[in-house]
Amino acid sequence: MRERIRAAGHDVVGYDPRPEISDAASLAELVEKLAAPRVVWVMVPSGVTEDIIDQLGGLLSAGDIVIDGGNSKFTDDGPRAERLGALGIGYMDVGVSGGVWGITNGYALMVGGEKQHVDHCMPIFEALKPAGEFGFAHAGPVGAGHYSKMVHNGIEYGLMHAYAEGYELLKASELVHNVPEVFKSWREGSVVKSWLLDLLDRALDEDPELANIKGYAEDTGEGRWTVEEGIRLAVPMNVIAASLFARFTSRQEDSPAIKAVAALRNQFGGHAVKR
Amino acid sequence: MRERIRAAGHDVVGYDPRPEISDAASLAELVEKLAAPRVVWVMVPSGVTEDIIDQLGGLLSAGDIVIDGGNSKFTDDGPRAERLGALGIGYMDVGVSGGVWGITNGYALMVGGEKQHVDHCMPIFEALKPAGEFGFAHAGPVGAGHYSKMVHNGIEYGLMHAYAEGYELLKASELVHNVPEVFKSWREGSVVKSWLLDLLDRALDEDPELANIKGYAEDTGEGRWTVEEGIRLAVPMNVIAASLFARFTSRQEDSPAIKAVAALRNQFGGHAVKR
Amino acid sequence: MRERIRAAGHDVVGYDPRPEISDAASLAELVEKLAAPRVVWVMVPSGVTEDIIDQLGGLLSAGDIVIDGGNSKFTDDGPRAERLGALGIGYMDVGVSGGVWGITNGYALMVGGEKQHVDHCMPIFEALKPAGEFGFAHAGPVGAGHYSKMVHNGIEYGLMHAYAEGYELLKASELVHNVPEVFKSWREGSVVKSWLLDLLDRALDEDPELANIKGYAEDTGEGRWTVEEGIRLAVPMNVIAASLFARFTSRQEDSPAIKAVAALRNQFGGHAVKR
Amino acid sequence: MRERIRAAGHDVVGYDPRPEISDAASLAELVEKLAAPRVVWVMVPSGVTEDIIDQLGGLLSAGDIVIDGGNSKFTDDGPRAERLGALGIGYMDVGVSGGVWGITNGYALMVGGEKQHVDHCMPIFEALKPAGEFGFAHAGPVGAGHYSKMVHNGIEYGLMHAYAEGYELLKASELVHNVPEVFKSWREGSVVKSWLLDLLDRALDEDPELANIKGYAEDTGEGRWTVEEGIRLAVPMNVIAASLFARFTSRQEDSPAIKAVAALRNQFGGHAVKR
Repeated sequence: MRERIRAAGHDVVGYDPRPEISDAASLAELVEKLAAPRVVWVMVPSGVTEDIIDQLGGLLSAGDIVIDGGNSKFTDDGPRAERLGALGIGYMDVGVSGGVWGITNGYALMVGGEKQHVDHCMPIFEALKPAGEFGFAHAGPVGAGHYSKMVHNGIEYGLMHAYAEGYELLKASELVHNVPEVFKSWREGSVVKSWLLDLLDRALDEDPELANIKGYAEDTGEGRWTVEEGIRLAVPMNVIAASLFARFTSRQEDSPAIKAVAALRNQFGGHAVKR
Repeated sequence: MRERIRAAGHDVVGYDPRPEISDAASLAELVEKLAAPRVVWVMVPSGVTEDIIDQLGGLLSAGDIVIDGGNSKFTDDGPRAERLGALGIGYMDVGVSGGVWGITNGYALMVGGEKQHVDHCMPIFEALKPAGEFGFAHAGPVGAGHYSKMVHNGIEYGLMHAYAEGYELLKASELVHNVPEVFKSWREGSVVKSWLLDLLDRALDEDPELANIKGYAEDTGEGRWTVEEGIRLAVPMNVIAASLFARFTSRQEDSPAIKAVAALRNQFGGHAVKR
Repeated sequence: MRERIRAAGHDVVGYDPRPEISDAASLAELVEKLAAPRVVWVMVPSGVTEDIIDQLGGLLSAGDIVIDGGNSKFTDDGPRAERLGALGIGYMDVGVSGGVWGITNGYALMVGGEKQHVDHCMPIFEALKPAGEFGFAHAGPVGAGHYSKMVHNGIEYGLMHAYAEGYELLKASELVHNVPEVFKSWREGSVVKSWLLDLLDRALDEDPELANIKGYAEDTGEGRWTVEEGIRLAVPMNVIAASLFARFTSRQEDSPAIKAVAALRNQFGGHAVKR
Repeated sequence: MRERIRAAGHDVVGYDPRPEISDAASLAELVEKLAAPRVVWVMVPSGVTEDIIDQLGGLLSAGDIVIDGGNSKFTDDGPRAERLGALGIGYMDVGVSGGVWGITNGYALMVGGEKQHVDHCMPIFEALKPAGEFGFAHAGPVGAGHYSKMVHNGIEYGLMHAYAEGYELLKASELVHNVPEVFKSWREGSVVKSWLLDLLDRALDEDPELANIKGYAEDTGEGRWTVEEGIRLAVPMNVIAASLFARFTSRQEDSPAIKAVAALRNQFGGHAVKR
């Protein structure tokens, strides 16, 4: 992301614990190197975000702004904004999508925060977002950026699993002999064309049978939070929840639930069980 | 079932290809040994039902009745009734529940057919069903018996899976140390008490960790037909379908769908895949 | 519940804000009326449980025991036990199932707490539980009782919805003319027999078409917590989640999600939308 | 589609029962107007396809080819190919995606049939498909075209519903004030960008609250067939089935299943029901 902002003509000072890619020896030095009013974009693993932001609270001055561009849970944003706000420091949460492709394509940005802070940082957002009218939204107050990103990722779970079910069915079919070609055909002209479809086609080009990939998928938090929010707000989440549960299942060596089902079938019907 | 009918004082002649448990050497001899008007109860693996019924059509006389007590698909019943009806032979379909416990408990019977045939065979149904007011229904015309049994089994899939999910969650919990005891406690006084729960408790008595059972479950047709009927009639079947799909998943060595999900995650996020 | 405990020969002093059914004018008087070591069973709407328990902490003495028999969330139990424990007061959480039928049938009890407290209160549990070997479990430490009850209720959601889907399919079928009779037939001899089935039969006796009941169902917390716990522990919860989501849907006047689906169909296919 | 083929320099004679848009007065005249070997592309409502194809069988000559570009079920294709093949007439099934936008964007084509027939008709496919390397696949033998289109539409159901659930959650959120802007932001740079997303943004531009659209969605066959095929081939279809069932639910005035749930809650818990 540093590259895209620099390419837009801004000065950027980056800090990373690995000296070889860091522009500053410490957070404190990073703050020193920036002229006030500073904007500090935090993009760190979610486990350390809270700590970094509190450190920044001690280093920055009134009028500075902290942006969390990582995948924090939206419920963390309000308390952070309050803690920093008490010191006169602004806070925005920015959901960032784009993955490893963002450097070239630009990143979609969903921002939560006060209008004055958004306006102040707009040049940075302009540098990061894709050219054109899309790729940026001021979604609402503090928290709305991470919330939007969370829902974005929840949708992503559902989209991926819809393609995945179709893939599995085509593979199982006796009629369709050329599954990768069928996916490729959908990339233009079809109703299901999408960037994810392009990527699936790319994966099938590299490995037409996906022979080198195990059916094992992690999940990273946003999918869970999306379903939890659905539960909190009484919003039915059948598709996204099913996508999430399928990942859970993929990581099980054996299913305790199906053990119970098999035990029951054995009890009432004398059906053989696998041992 | 022969035992329960005989115990009720009826003459029964049984035919089975295995001579050691058969009362007749052939279907023809079975028919000969019965006095008209005959009632022939067919209970054979679904693959051979059609053939047996057609053989019976050639051996029986007008006024006789054929009952299919197996797990035929309900759509087979109408055509059979027509074929036999053209010969003056009656036909009823009877869904039979009870599993290996039916000999002692009695079998729940769901009957499809004409009222006159049901009335004629009522003594047999009385012998087979449990004592008391429950365990028998004349569900409707030919086909309604197997239809009701199909739905019964579809419900059974959902019930089993609800207990199974609860079982898995209790097993995963850090707090509940005594999962079999908890299931046992529900057998009286609780809202979830049921015969299936009794059986699950019995299975946990035999093997408290279900350590000797693999998480692998077959399905036998009725669950699939139930969901297909839901689709035909636009009836949402989320629970029963999910129970069915979980069995499908349990039989897969690896999931092609999750391979596709893992491939996608690798493509856009650089997430590591398992190989 | 007071009736069952009194019937077992114990002295019970009940407090309720409604004087006409209360044995004491206040919590303080209730505590006074009991001889130490006291056992106080709290069974109040979940919104006020926390407050009542804290009041009791101020009124009781070391050696007394507080039992929460309401539907508290299991995560509340540990902190309560700690607060009371600091005063020398014991705490147990008891999940209670049985609904309005418990007075006659006994209540299934799932207990979380220390063994010494469980042993001390066993006579009360004996009075409340159904006669016989079932209906009681010491599930684990503090929290395990409410946890077990939560899972019990989650299972209950799934069971109810499995019957409900079967009911809807039978109603939609062209073949099954006598849906209430079919449910009645399952009450004995069938694999799906259960207390819930008995109740559904009872409801159909009262109103064979369920004509006087709207398809609208509340949910009361435990179903949500069950799915949330499934998410936390990576346990797939397809059936219970689907049952929960169906209740959410039942309470919507219109579905924003389906509005979006209809809008999309209109955009790409020119499919008519309902306005 | 006629326009795209003509634009590519081919002669096209169209027949439609409505004379004002028809180039021929009858199917027979259409056949007469074409020079052998003829290629006849059938694109009619699925209810009449079978009849039209049989009529064409009587009018065409050996060496001609019939293409069904409608949404027939894949199981119809084999028998048609056999019937026409007996007359020396070739048959191909072509799944066509693109909706009302295909005229300008080109249509994605999935073809089932023999290689010689595909090769012969390639110029037509070239005219219809989008420019470039995508938008066309020879998926396999007769039936594979409609099969691929069926799966395409099943995926489409899942994709649409994933966006729809995300939409509903964002609408329900207290934090996100600008839901249409958030969707717009995803159109570039995000992982969920797709043509369907573009269309949803378009719909939200026209009606930001979807206030003029009822939450009511039809389904047109392919979604049902996809789930049925999943069932036949034991492929779990949780996401696509949930999307389909949600449409079923959207068309119900009241839910018989939830009536049963409400009746049960009333029976065991005394919970009030809505009447």
